[in-house]
Amino acid sequence: MTDRTGRTPGVVVDSSRSPYAMLHPVPADAVTIDDQFWAPRIRRNREVTLPSQGKQLWKTGRFENFLRVSGESDSPFQGRFFNDSDVYKWIEAASWSLLNNSDPDLSDQVDEATAIIGAAQQPDGYLNTYFALERADERWTDFDLHEMYCAGHLFQAAVAHHRATGSSALLDIATRLADHIGSVFGPIETGKRSGTDGHPEVEMGLVELFRVTGERSYLELAQFLVDVRGHGFLGDAYDRYGSEYHQDHRPFREMDEIVGHAVRAVYLNAGVADIYAETGETALLDALHRLWWNMTERKMYVSGGIGSRYEGEAFGDEYELPNQLAYTETCAAIGSMMWSWRMLLIEGDARYADLFELQLYNAMLAGVSLDGETYFYQNPLADEGAHRRQPWFKTACCPPNVARTLASLSGYLYSVRDDAIYIHHYIAGEARISLGDRVIGVRQTGNYPWGGEIAISVETAGEFELRLRIPGWSGPGVTVSVNGADIGVVSLAGSYLALRRTWNAGDVIDLSLPMPVRRIECHPAVTENVGRVALMRGPLLYCAEAIDNQANELLTVMLPDAAMIDTTYEPELLGGVTSISVLVEPGDSVTRWKETLFQRVEGLNGDKPESTSLKLIPYYSWANREPGRMRVWIRRK
Amino acid sequence: MTDRTGRTPGVVVDSSRSPYAMLHPVPADAVTIDDQFWAPRIRRNREVTLPSQGKQLWKTGRFENFLRVSGESDSPFQGRFFNDSDVYKWIEAASWSLLNNSDPDLSDQVDEATAIIGAAQQPDGYLNTYFALERADERWTDFDLHEMYCAGHLFQAAVAHHRATGSSALLDIATRLADHIGSVFGPIETGKRSGTDGHPEVEMGLVELFRVTGERSYLELAQFLVDVRGHGFLGDAYDRYGSEYHQDHRPFREMDEIVGHAVRAVYLNAGVADIYAETGETALLDALHRLWWNMTERKMYVSGGIGSRYEGEAFGDEYELPNQLAYTETCAAIGSMMWSWRMLLIEGDARYADLFELQLYNAMLAGVSLDGETYFYQNPLADEGAHRRQPWFKTACCPPNVARTLASLSGYLYSVRDDAIYIHHYIAGEARISLGDRVIGVRQTGNYPWGGEIAISVETAGEFELRLRIPGWSGPGVTVSVNGADIGVVSLAGSYLALRRTWNAGDVIDLSLPMPVRRIECHPAVTENVGRVALMRGPLLYCAEAIDNQANELLTVMLPDAAMIDTTYEPELLGGVTSISVLVEPGDSVTRWKETLFQRVEGLNGDKPESTSLKLIPYYSWANREPGRMRVWIRRK
Repeated sequence: MTDRTGRTPGVVVDSSRSPYAMLHPVPADAVTIDDQFWAPRIRRNREVTLPSQGKQLWKTGRFENFLRVSGESDSPFQGRFFNDSDVYKWIEAASWSLLNNSDPDLSDQVDEATAIIGAAQQPDGYLNTYFALERADERWTDFDLHEMYCAGHLFQAAVAHHRATGSSALLDIATRLADHIGSVFGPIETGKRSGTDGHPEVEMGLVELFRVTGERSYLELAQFLVDVRGHGFLGDAYDRYGSEYHQDHRPFREMDEIVGHAVRAVYLNAGVADIYAETGETALLDALHRLWWNMTERKMYVSGGIGSRYEGEAFGDEYELPNQLAYTETCAAIGSMMWSWRMLLIEGDARYADLFELQLYNAMLAGVSLDGETYFYQNPLADEGAHRRQPWFKTACCPPNVARTLASLSGYLYSVRDDAIYIHHYIAGEARISLGDRVIGVRQTGNYPWGGEIAISVETAGEFELRLRIPGWSGPGVTVSVNGADIGVVSLAGSYLALRRTWNAGDVIDLSLPMPVRRIECHPAVTENVGRVALMRGPLLYCAEAIDNQANELLTVMLPDAAMIDTTYEPELLGGVTSISVLVEPGDSVTRWKETLFQRVEGLNGDKPESTSLKLIPYYSWANREPGRMRVWIRRK
Repeated sequence: MTDRTGRTPGVVVDSSRSPYAMLHPVPADAVTIDDQFWAPRIRRNREVTLPSQGKQLWKTGRFENFLRVSGESDSPFQGRFFNDSDVYKWIEAASWSLLNNSDPDLSDQVDEATAIIGAAQQPDGYLNTYFALERADERWTDFDLHEMYCAGHLFQAAVAHHRATGSSALLDIATRLADHIGSVFGPIETGKRSGTDGHPEVEMGLVELFRVTGERSYLELAQFLVDVRGHGFLGDAYDRYGSEYHQDHRPFREMDEIVGHAVRAVYLNAGVADIYAETGETALLDALHRLWWNMTERKMYVSGGIGSRYEGEAFGDEYELPNQLAYTETCAAIGSMMWSWRMLLIEGDARYADLFELQLYNAMLAGVSLDGETYFYQNPLADEGAHRRQPWFKTACCPPNVARTLASLSGYLYSVRDDAIYIHHYIAGEARISLGDRVIGVRQTGNYPWGGEIAISVETAGEFELRLRIPGWSGPGVTVSVNGADIGVVSLAGSYLALRRTWNAGDVIDLSLPMPVRRIECHPAVTENVGRVALMRGPLLYCAEAIDNQANELLTVMLPDAAMIDTTYEPELLGGVTSISVLVEPGDSVTRWKETLFQRVEGLNGDKPESTSLKLIPYYSWANREPGRMRVWIRRK
């Protein structure tokens, strides 16, 4: 139960023993976040989000579904067949939170939840409140009803709970269920059943269980559940299996285009990355490379959002990226972050950290309101004012997914490799990093993402390497100095700058990442974005909302390529943001369009348009004020 | 069975006795089409399309489903639960075809089909091959399984068959089924069941049955089936009822936005228009006006296509008109034409004929290949080359819908009102029009839609009014002369020019509709079309295909507002079309985008682009050559 550094692992993925991972995580509780941007969000997650979600779980019968199985309630089953997973994700989120911040009340709630869950487990280890009592005979009859999906979330929760509390109470429940699944499913030659879940998730959970318990059969089961896909084992009733939707359209190793249900796809890929980290099978990594490239260069929004289609919550065709109808589920962004995190550990390539950062600050963070109490399921890049965050959903996967991501954020900031420390993200705070038999103290200060001036102080003397991620979005002018001595111009955007030396305690590295506003253009096959730009600054995507602008102008204003762009930090705006303002030229008058959809072009536009000002705010902060039109892509002139 | 003119009605809608219709139809067999554009298409429909569809109906078990009910086959039910409707639509198409062109072989096939259908009718009048034998007990248990929808198509087929053949064989089957439905469903106070079909269609059929038979209970039943919507009578099992999808979200008279499944919506609206024509209830007409306006000015493609979403084959939000993902089902365009036709009869407003024409030449006509053997279900306005017409579909509503529309086209060209003859469409041929107790001969010649020079000769002397539709797309320069004498400048675009006089046999009206290429722009809320133009000429929308152009250039070329546009009639191209060519400026190079989806804007574009030529063809003719990229909306400069 301990990794090679002798500590109980405490991070989202413990690949500290994974033989095919280049990097190894630094436990979440080895890192303290003391950051002007993130610390208030993590506190709000703990103080507002987790308690309010816990209440929702009771109010919507999700806890009571467990109580009815153990005979403590005679209520009928409530909600949807996968509702157990929300309970598990909430426990996972609460556990990560408890790892860094003690909270007796939350701790009591988690203990209570664990007891309730344990009482609902069947003698044979099976656990799913939907397939209990009157539906007990229907176990494992329909692979689209998320039995393994729910189990996977239990496994992840159990690992987090074990790491946060040291208790094995939930972990024992999890391993009993994993053992049960392993007794039912397996290769044909074992005489067991073939099949896997229509919704991937269990793969990640099983590999984590393997890492925590050392029980190799969990890894083998995860591998089997991947291998069985795409071979027609799932049958074809109702055209539901063998489908792209279920990631069952072809064997994983042959996949070369990311298709189907976006969350299913990236959860599966994250699970396969976990398997690769343990087995090193090249065919798996090759497929992951193809899929990651296809996603990022063909099917991803500039926000990092993924999933273009409402129909099937799915990836679309290449370059199919409608802005207003973007599906871009919050969970899909989180799944992609989980996948990229695992790829980063495997390969140490900064592009994975770049994508993680993009999605963290944009596609994922937009999924929760500034007050931490309402959520987006879809995160479109254009809106007319009707899309608003909701306090809960019938399908409530996204809220606890956001909560567990925020609660575990400290685990994603650093990694180690031999005697090198990788700094992936610039989030102020302290870390106590185990490096071989040493523990190295590192402290970051800075004002990211509003400013790119970061100071990193080394608090422990010794010879080792520090690797600083130079974000892929960086342009010219990045500088680094050690104790005030400039080490020369750095042009390593999208890679890690290695600083190897014998450090003295108190050495300070100053990293300066200039953050001009960047005009981003899009491949012209994305018809909607042709002739338009999106504005980014640092890791942040920007958007314009009606409340700061003339709503009609958002449809037509044109941003000249030569226009000077101003930025202002506004402490009172949206919890404190750097806003953008720029002089733009008005386009066509919208008022003349009041009644008609199509018109003949009325001669040439002879009027010299007057300039007007356009204000933009960070995309993550949209829809936190009064409803109105929002646009990311602005016409370019 | 005869209308007030003493003739057996023979047109799609016989509202000749409808008290609340301003116009009355001229029977389809009173008009002979002898038109260079349409006559070959109608002949191909008769010689190629109808026989090949008949074979598909046999091959796919649609006829055999009837034989198994009558005990002549022991095959299981084949295909989908609404497959009867395809047989009925094919009979309707064949009947309209027989009305104008005798064809003994086709006539025999129709007789055989009628006998097969009759043998499958139950003693109580019920008729639906899906709900027979083993499923007989499930009749009327699920209102989403199209029992009334299929019945409605039988009713329309029966009316057409009766008019074409004089036989009552199919009409008797139809009235027995209508009587059966009327015995089961009706207002609560009658002790009958409440309910209506999840897919409107039966309403039109019932009103037509009323018109043919004079049996008022059919009209009352149609009215009931509209009135029952939106009141929760359909229950809420599976969230399926009370839905916009089923047009059950609110009472019809309260509707003010066109939403939900597009075909369902326009079929319902067409049926309600039929009811209004008989009852004159203002609340119905008011709702129809609101819905028609909302559709045409907020939710319609420039092709006349409707239905923006694959999800639910549905109308989207206002201004939600994605080009490549346009659903724009062929059946929806046809349903809209049926609706507009009925509105035209009710109100005599040329805007309805304008929309009918737009959809006839574009949204509908693109639905069938030039060879008459393959069909589009969706008609997108942009494509990457993968969307191709198919010879048949599991859900094969569109192919016979196209066939019946083409076969009955002669019935949509003229209408009468008191002593006025309305000429709605410029399609060459002859008409013998009953006007009171006179029969007026009218002959059209011309080259529409390639040219706008139309000659109309009056072949019967007498005093009456001729009303010529001046299309809404007309610009300045429309001229009309009678026997060579110019009657002055006409600026009546979108209305009817009334010519009242005492005509001599042989009088000739020359109408000249100039057809410059029109640049059309779109409301800027349709983000994808901002800064773009579509080209139209006469009633035709144009598009550019890769085969005539550089595929990559289609993404980025810019059409200057001042560019001269050339047109050429090319007899060998696509069965003979007028093509458009225009000098355009190349936009951004696509090659530099090979590997990336997003890039920083690389300074200002300093290079002077070289002009290149862009060629466009009529939208209806796209995808008849080798597959490749297609675009309607071209960037404007």
